[in-house]
Amino acid sequence: MRTLHTRHDLREALAPLRREGRSIGLVPTMGYLHAGHVRLMERARTGNDVVVATVFVNPTQFAAGEDLDTYPRDAEGDARRCREAGVDLLWMPPVDQVYRDGHATTVAVGGVADHLCGRSRPTHFAGVATVVLKLLNLVGPDRAYFGQKDRQQLQVIRALVADLDVPVSIVGVPTVREGDGLALSSRNAYLTPNERREASAISRALRAAVDAWAAGERDPGALRDGLTARLDAIPGARIDYAEIVHPEHMSPLGSAADAAAGALAAVAVHLGRTRLIDNVRLDEPDTPFLSATG
Amino acid sequence: MRTLHTRHDLREALAPLRREGRSIGLVPTMGYLHAGHVRLMERARTGNDVVVATVFVNPTQFAAGEDLDTYPRDAEGDARRCREAGVDLLWMPPVDQVYRDGHATTVAVGGVADHLCGRSRPTHFAGVATVVLKLLNLVGPDRAYFGQKDRQQLQVIRALVADLDVPVSIVGVPTVREGDGLALSSRNAYLTPNERREASAISRALRAAVDAWAAGERDPGALRDGLTARLDAIPGARIDYAEIVHPEHMSPLGSAADAAAGALAAVAVHLGRTRLIDNVRLDEPDTPFLSATG
Repeated sequence: MRTLHTRHDLREALAPLRREGRSIGLVPTMGYLHAGHVRLMERARTGNDVVVATVFVNPTQFAAGEDLDTYPRDAEGDARRCREAGVDLLWMPPVDQVYRDGHATTVAVGGVADHLCGRSRPTHFAGVATVVLKLLNLVGPDRAYFGQKDRQQLQVIRALVADLDVPVSIVGVPTVREGDGLALSSRNAYLTPNERREASAISRALRAAVDAWAAGERDPGALRDGLTARLDAIPGARIDYAEIVHPEHMSPLGSAADAAAGALAAVAVHLGRTRLIDNVRLDEPDTPFLSATG
Repeated sequence: MRTLHTRHDLREALAPLRREGRSIGLVPTMGYLHAGHVRLMERARTGNDVVVATVFVNPTQFAAGEDLDTYPRDAEGDARRCREAGVDLLWMPPVDQVYRDGHATTVAVGGVADHLCGRSRPTHFAGVATVVLKLLNLVGPDRAYFGQKDRQQLQVIRALVADLDVPVSIVGVPTVREGDGLALSSRNAYLTPNERREASAISRALRAAVDAWAAGERDPGALRDGLTARLDAIPGARIDYAEIVHPEHMSPLGSAADAAAGALAAVAVHLGRTRLIDNVRLDEPDTPFLSATG
């Protein structure tokens, strides 16, 4: 594995691979890599000749007062995990290699970005869309891999790529969870031991919504109320949102009839100083939500 | 020359050329082609293995009340001019081949887009940036060609490509003019015979600014006042703007010291129902401004 830091070195390393017609899989991350990221890399490894991973904590997707400065970092551990996962090229650029002096262009994805996290973090997805588009342009991959834990981000990127005709396939990869159901996230490192114990109740609340759906409940209001009640019962938790939404458009469902195309239960919860998000397709839940444990 | 209409056919036609490593030059236009467009195509022909031209009147760069519906069109004449200029692939898509149902992504280039035309037409450059980025992504050219008559558009596209790391070279091509100095524009077709005669005074006003600069004038206020006085003297003219700006950033110069990096005189004038724009680098004027006629 080669680890690169400048845009120049990245382009130099990729040019011959592209000329030879080798397929390239890209895994863009903010680092502090966990088993969820590793699964993205494994998928990229299986589907492409060359795997490129990037580690970049993108400042433009954080608003003032958010956790940009405290976001956990571990360059050595990240490089080791990438190597073990079969990454060929790891790009870990400083900020000035990504954003030039005088950078002034913003990519705004309307519609899908306006709901859920887009309401709590109004500039977040423009920052995500801009940096992802830059990474796609820099690397020129055939496929790029994103986790379903950040389901709205995945849909924003799908809309971005469709709307701007970016020649890449976007692959969504199922969420990896701890034994007690907590979705893996670099931000789990913020949790105190006590918060960590309470955090498992988030996936249990989603699991209860899956069970209600399986039992025939289709009323979005009833599903949301059940979700909200369970989240409200977590000691120290403050709900940012708990919604039943269209699985692609992320717009809240108004009635049982709206659930015909499927439904996604999506939540954001503050536990102490940590904001956690999670989601599940009620009509097509991932395996962990179908198992007996969790 | 092949003329194509769907995005599918365009991508199919380009895929083998790209696999073979042939260089591609792109000339994006809104059609009603004139000698200025032909010069772009000739430049693309000289510099690339394959020349792609597009004719698409992009609705998102027109505001309500502007001339989208009356914009002149001539598909047959355009195809003939492209063929004569050595274009290999001409793409003339209907709107639904460019913008999918539910399109919601906008690319905003700040800074350079905020001045001049950006003030009179606040949504214009976002529409331009979005469609140009889409065309660059659809065609994947090595080089793309734009006229200097739309100098601010050229700088907006340069900023777009730099900020988003689009792997393409942007080539600016000097303005082509009529014998009396009027810059070629598809919108010249709107002019009445009388307005057409008066229109030549716009380039004469720019020429006077070039002469003043050559005589040593560096004060932006004095240069602007001279320009404004000459444009005000055109019967039936209404000035939208007449500015002395930074040649790359398009920001108005405040003092003679600001002119150290060069200066661009840029104007927009309404003549009857027609809005005409023109510009000249005062420090590096194009050949027509150096000749004895005009």
